[in-house]
Amino acid sequence: MKINGTPYRSVWRPLNDRKSIRIFDQTRLPWNLEELELRDEEAVAHAICTMQVRGAPLIGAVAAYGLVFALQNDASDASLEKSAAALVETRPTAINLRWAIERMVNHLRPLPASQRVEAGYLEADAICDEDVQVNEAIGRHGLELIREIWERKGRQGTVNLLTHCNAGWIATVDWGTALAPIYMAHDEGIPVHVWVDETRPRNQGSLLTAWELGSHGVAHTVIADNAGGHYMQAGRVDMVIVGTDRVTAQGDVANKIGTYLKALAARDNNVPFWVALPSSTIDWRVQDGVKEIPIEERSQDEVLFVPGLDAHGNQSRVRVAPERSPAANPAFDVTPARLVTGLITERGRCDASAAGLNRLFPGAARETPSA
Amino acid sequence: MKINGTPYRSVWRPLNDRKSIRIFDQTRLPWNLEELELRDEEAVAHAICTMQVRGAPLIGAVAAYGLVFALQNDASDASLEKSAAALVETRPTAINLRWAIERMVNHLRPLPASQRVEAGYLEADAICDEDVQVNEAIGRHGLELIREIWERKGRQGTVNLLTHCNAGWIATVDWGTALAPIYMAHDEGIPVHVWVDETRPRNQGSLLTAWELGSHGVAHTVIADNAGGHYMQAGRVDMVIVGTDRVTAQGDVANKIGTYLKALAARDNNVPFWVALPSSTIDWRVQDGVKEIPIEERSQDEVLFVPGLDAHGNQSRVRVAPERSPAANPAFDVTPARLVTGLITERGRCDASAAGLNRLFPGAARETPSA
Repeated sequence: MKINGTPYRSVWRPLNDRKSIRIFDQTRLPWNLEELELRDEEAVAHAICTMQVRGAPLIGAVAAYGLVFALQNDASDASLEKSAAALVETRPTAINLRWAIERMVNHLRPLPASQRVEAGYLEADAICDEDVQVNEAIGRHGLELIREIWERKGRQGTVNLLTHCNAGWIATVDWGTALAPIYMAHDEGIPVHVWVDETRPRNQGSLLTAWELGSHGVAHTVIADNAGGHYMQAGRVDMVIVGTDRVTAQGDVANKIGTYLKALAARDNNVPFWVALPSSTIDWRVQDGVKEIPIEERSQDEVLFVPGLDAHGNQSRVRVAPERSPAANPAFDVTPARLVTGLITERGRCDASAAGLNRLFPGAARETPSA
Repeated sequence: MKINGTPYRSVWRPLNDRKSIRIFDQTRLPWNLEELELRDEEAVAHAICTMQVRGAPLIGAVAAYGLVFALQNDASDASLEKSAAALVETRPTAINLRWAIERMVNHLRPLPASQRVEAGYLEADAICDEDVQVNEAIGRHGLELIREIWERKGRQGTVNLLTHCNAGWIATVDWGTALAPIYMAHDEGIPVHVWVDETRPRNQGSLLTAWELGSHGVAHTVIADNAGGHYMQAGRVDMVIVGTDRVTAQGDVANKIGTYLKALAARDNNVPFWVALPSSTIDWRVQDGVKEIPIEERSQDEVLFVPGLDAHGNQSRVRVAPERSPAANPAFDVTPARLVTGLITERGRCDASAAGLNRLFPGAARETPSA
């Protein structure tokens, strides 16, 4: 997507240095647009751990390059397995990370060590290109839903969408998942407006989604995470659309903490609640998301301190709780399939259920080895 | 309640200076415990407007003293009416403020001007003492619920409560509403632990509730507002208890924005959701809270900026959204009665319904003049 008129992807190999990748340091957004160069596995792992890159699809793509960087030093089987395991560990909840690394390992293991680096770059490039295609397809399938709302409203007023966290282009290689249909609707002239949950504790909504939408010219309003239920009650939300970090074979949805609360409010107010995802996000080995998906517990400092821009224009942070008060910080929650209106994938839309998923992806559940 | 072992009220007349009151400057909490002396009407109005005092019951009590201060200069009827009107205007939505001022005026108007100051002090003292009694009664009735949970758990482990915003002693004269049962449970040795919603955008939870509980020695954990649903799903919340700004005659509950989302999660997970309130909070003239209660829209800066303590220990704030992104800030939402397990009042507990309220307060709905 474009930033100030210039098209970008969120990760790319510079033409003049094909042995590195460039990313935007997302910990500096929206205040500063800074490119970071990554050229070894440690830098990739650090970028993932510190959330300089974030968003399940982008993490997977960046980690794929990280594996290639490791092979540049040592392309042996042992090195491949060791680096793959280390990279998967950087964000344990992100299923795309594991998917991307497994794809890389399965592709590279049969090759002689001498061919692995070159083949690895090509495969990581392919993961990126496919991610863009997949998200574009998701966008087209989701766009139909927004068009239907717009028609149902007699092409009057505004289509009001609500989203949580950031499932935009900066969380993928391009387009985004949940935001792809919104960008397409905006681009074809449907007047969309997005309620942007700020998404505490890390504020990916107020920092990244608001920045993305604003940069693209999409009307939006930042709200506290607490406010979405009220707006749904007041009839001011036509559709909720979110991304996901993992969808189970029965359609349960793991996503940023707080998503479940919005799904409950959507159900209570008959607001459609859609989840946009590439099929790589589906974990066919897991059925019951609430019982089976481990929830990453992150540092309590993310709750106790809020980062932002101080009065002098510097990135800073303020403490928002007394020194002796502890905090807890579960990063994700699970929205049971029963609360999800449907899933939007690159193959089209389906019910959030085993039947719905099997219809779009026949045989996928059966073909997946158990964990 | 206690601050590091010393018992306090949130407003008091010093024994050596009975013509002033003292409060804690709540805009300085939890970072600094600063007593403020108020001895004229202007200082009282300023303290209310700038939220140096907040919490509906406390505002009412402090305003009552403000009226007496005005009468010290001029105890005429004209002065009484003028000051009463001015004080009511300081926070136009606070129902207890109007209630307290009307009580003072009705009490003082029949008296000769020469007796009004002395009688005014006694009436304001009575408002304070009654508030403490009412909250203590709420605490006793709520304590029974916590005791029941503790017994049901076989007196093992911890009773985990979740609260939203601040309905503690610092929002009343003493005890608080939602926190009163928790203090009593703690004081009688039940091991309670409180999940404290930070309560964006003003963070009354992480700032005030966490401070209150910590100062009194009650175990607690600050969480993002997004996290409560997950903890309920995980079976880690035994009961939700919140205060309220207004309860309708049919039991709908207006409270801090985000309360509705917690009520939905509680219902979805069979977690009891209780609302603690003095009966002065019941608005017998209103039935359908969602349709009839106007929701105060506050400054978008409360969403766009987060106040806290900077690295130098100074109160500061950081911007958390891009400059060109607007925000919206509804201050309250309405939780429909169907999601409320019950109400805890000074007269006992009841269903959140017209029948339940009429049983505890027979005739009250009938006796209230329509708005």
